[in-house]
Amino acid sequence: MSILVVGSVALDTIKTPFGSCEEELGGSAAYFSVAAGHFDKVHMVAVVGTDFPTQHVEFFKERGLGLDGLQSMEGKTFRWHGEYGFELGEAKSLLTSVNVFEHFHPVIPVDLRDTEYVFLANIDPTLQMEVLEQMESPKFVACDTMNFWIMGKREELLRTIQHVDALILNDAEARQLTGEPNLLKAAKGIIAMGPKMVIIKKGEHGALLITPEFKFSAPAYPVELLFDPTGAGDSFAGGFVGFMARCGECCEDTLRLAVMYGTVMASFAVERFGVKRLAELDTFSILDRLKELKKLSEFEIQPM
Amino acid sequence: MSILVVGSVALDTIKTPFGSCEEELGGSAAYFSVAAGHFDKVHMVAVVGTDFPTQHVEFFKERGLGLDGLQSMEGKTFRWHGEYGFELGEAKSLLTSVNVFEHFHPVIPVDLRDTEYVFLANIDPTLQMEVLEQMESPKFVACDTMNFWIMGKREELLRTIQHVDALILNDAEARQLTGEPNLLKAAKGIIAMGPKMVIIKKGEHGALLITPEFKFSAPAYPVELLFDPTGAGDSFAGGFVGFMARCGECCEDTLRLAVMYGTVMASFAVERFGVKRLAELDTFSILDRLKELKKLSEFEIQPM
Repeated sequence: MSILVVGSVALDTIKTPFGSCEEELGGSAAYFSVAAGHFDKVHMVAVVGTDFPTQHVEFFKERGLGLDGLQSMEGKTFRWHGEYGFELGEAKSLLTSVNVFEHFHPVIPVDLRDTEYVFLANIDPTLQMEVLEQMESPKFVACDTMNFWIMGKREELLRTIQHVDALILNDAEARQLTGEPNLLKAAKGIIAMGPKMVIIKKGEHGALLITPEFKFSAPAYPVELLFDPTGAGDSFAGGFVGFMARCGECCEDTLRLAVMYGTVMASFAVERFGVKRLAELDTFSILDRLKELKKLSEFEIQPM
Repeated sequence: MSILVVGSVALDTIKTPFGSCEEELGGSAAYFSVAAGHFDKVHMVAVVGTDFPTQHVEFFKERGLGLDGLQSMEGKTFRWHGEYGFELGEAKSLLTSVNVFEHFHPVIPVDLRDTEYVFLANIDPTLQMEVLEQMESPKFVACDTMNFWIMGKREELLRTIQHVDALILNDAEARQLTGEPNLLKAAKGIIAMGPKMVIIKKGEHGALLITPEFKFSAPAYPVELLFDPTGAGDSFAGGFVGFMARCGECCEDTLRLAVMYGTVMASFAVERFGVKRLAELDTFSILDRLKELKKLSEFEIQPM
């Protein structure tokens, strides 16, 4: 199977209590692709400006990513400046220059329109819908979103998520979308809006997968060297959709394991600025961490 | 084995978005004892006033609790008034009348001084230490605390926890005690203070058990009918210490499972006001929920 992702490619300038970086390769499509690329062929649909360093294009090529959908437009690449406090919770956005992204409309190359696995990264739900309208009945569509769209483009978002299999969002967003503080009720409310399943990301507390048939609670990997949380969610989605595409089917066991592969990829992403840590992984390091996570949450029942 | 708990017995008046109760039997020792009583013999050391309803004493007796250490003092029983908002997070304390608790000093009846399992519920660390000084080398001591003592009686608390096997506290308290936002680092910092292990309770996000030898991440039971969070932590401790005492040994498998039994008891406690839900449980309902939790977090590894 192969995967198509639509999202941002950005140059990030980030400050955390542990260091800082400037014009680091980032953006949702970049994190997702490098993570998912460990599992299957990924095609990126995104836009960069004419100032986008060729070394990053080379890097994408080396990763084996399909770049036919990567548009280059006159102007500057999306830039984001963010800062994290001591607790590494939510980032403080210091600057968001959308630049070429302002006029971006995703164009899916004709021979990619039958791609079976699609990830709609966190972009305007109108653009997410434009993508879906160009696709020929994908097998599995996962979709991310954020408070900005939940507040500002609620109608458009509700329309988009009617067509997705999995909505991936964090706990605060799930509560915001439904007005329901109880996460389980929020998840059920979201499923009533259209998606077949919901994944609620809880950062350092792991993730929940809720479907009408079953619930799965994934522990987070206890990262001691949490360096920069940027891109954790997109890396999670990369592991999740990547493994789903690799398996090519959507049974309960596959979904549970896909959430765990997502957890693994997110845990690596946060150990370094940008996508560097994700890029250096191999199958063994990924599997080792998965085994660690299994050990972390395992217990054997013994009657009282 | 048998268990000794020192803590409060209170009459709680609570308001949640789902209802309210007045003068409900509560307090850390009550929640703990009713939960732990499903696993082993529990002796309560606490104080009540002369106004304490005899029906509650009868209830304790029916539960098979040892009451030789339950003092009755001239005056009123500890009362707490609390209110929870829509999100059922931290309670807003409206009134705390310590009453007879003000002059309480725990006296351990002579024939209970060799009790092997001890739980020091969330009371003044000076009183916790008074208990330990009366005990004859218990096999396993677990201890709870809170922000109030971490701030106000730090030295006393640090002294007490040097003598405990397991410190049980919530994530905010672990961070506060150590000044370390990363929970894993905070746990290691606490172990360096003396306890052999730390359990960090994360409410709806489950719990972490950290020892120098291993880590265990327990999922929370996704409670849809979260009614009143009061007593969840003490019920957790009841399941944890209760199962430890029942097993009589302290290996890794037992500890993991004990955390899960704690999780089970907490998940029941929050379904109703007071200790009523805990009291009506039987072995089957406890085991069923444990199995549900196992299913909730289970996944099988399959290579990428």
